Amino acid sequence: MARSKIRTNDPIGLRNRVLDVAARSFQSSGFAATSTHDLVRMAGVTGGALHHHFPTKKALALAVIGERVAAELGETWVATVRDAPSAAAGILQAFDTVAAALDAQGSVSGCPLGNLALELSLADADLRGALASEYRVWRDAIADRVRRDREQGEASYAPDPEAFANVVIALFTGAMTIAKAEQDSTALKAAADQLRTIMR
Amino acid sequence: MARSKIRTNDPIGLRNRVLDVAARSFQSSGFAATSTHDLVRMAGVTGGALHHHFPTKKALALAVIGERVAAELGETWVATVRDAPSAAAGILQAFDTVAAALDAQGSVSGCPLGNLALELSLADADLRGALASEYRVWRDAIADRVRRDREQGEASYAPDPEAFANVVIALFTGAMTIAKAEQDSTALKAAADQLRTIMR
Repeated sequence: MARSKIRTNDPIGLRNRVLDVAARSFQSSGFAATSTHDLVRMAGVTGGALHHHFPTKKALALAVIGERVAAELGETWVATVRDAPSAAAGILQAFDTVAAALDAQGSVSGCPLGNLALELSLADADLRGALASEYRVWRDAIADRVRRDREQGEASYAPDPEAFANVVIALFTGAMTIAKAEQDSTALKAAADQLRTIMR
Repeated sequence: MARSKIRTNDPIGLRNRVLDVAARSFQSSGFAATSTHDLVRMAGVTGGALHHHFPTKKALALAVIGERVAAELGETWVATVRDAPSAAAGILQAFDTVAAALDAQGSVSGCPLGNLALELSLADADLRGALASEYRVWRDAIADRVRRDREQGEASYAPDPEAFANVVIALFTGAMTIAKAEQDSTALKAAADQLRTIMR
């Protein structure tokens, strides 16, 4: 559908389009490097419509974190770890899914949460709170799954489920940073192999 | 010394002052969020002097990576790992030093290399090359130290020294990202504890 044909009286569609474009641009170019002008152009909306839904760039960042980044985290990690036969299986599945996606895309733009965490944590207390809250959701999902395994007498590799969840998230996040600098998934695969050994 | 008293005919001092200020601001606020105007003000130099030493912001970023970030990496990691009695001792010392510094500062601005890697890797091929080169130096330093241990029949925890070096760097980098979002060194300590267990 040509942009000029998009119905302008579809506020939810418009809001979603802005969020999609903003989430993508914040991830590939960064928050500071994305201008309101870029967003207006890429989303095919007017400046007035953008301002109506997101009066400030901070409001837009909060919505990207709380809706788009949270949804991606929920799908890639929270649901995967919750529904897998074990914490180990879920964790390795999440790594494998992301590594396969990077190889298929042929380019690495990094972890959506990690990118924004490094750029925005010191910029604003509300943004930092929103970012820290996503790390908490991520950590709780892994720690809860490890605890369920431990109640069955398994996951002896993780005597402290919270600390182990931090290790998994750190390995993933850091490997995605190296992968972005090298545009190559080698570090992510090394991280998954190390976790496979730890969780054996 | 008051800024107005700084000798203007000290080009090396001026260049260093700009690099110090830029490295600090790139780390705490980010590259895109640091304006030339900020740099001129914070370094107490004229726009012309800034432009003389760093004709573009990209030239400044390359110098920050190749001089300031490389020096910090060299001190915190390369020299520490090289001079320690073992790879394990050097790696844990680097984690402990950084964790102690974070606790003493009471604030976390993140890993200088990781911050710039996430922000700039997709922005420019030369910047990405400079960032990837620092990860290579870091990885080589750890892998070389592990190989020296293995020649003495030690470090059996790392059959693939390159892959293990990636794991160490990923753990550190990711833990610093979480620490920045949470303004707390807990994740860094969890990462160090996991490495201590792996390298036992």
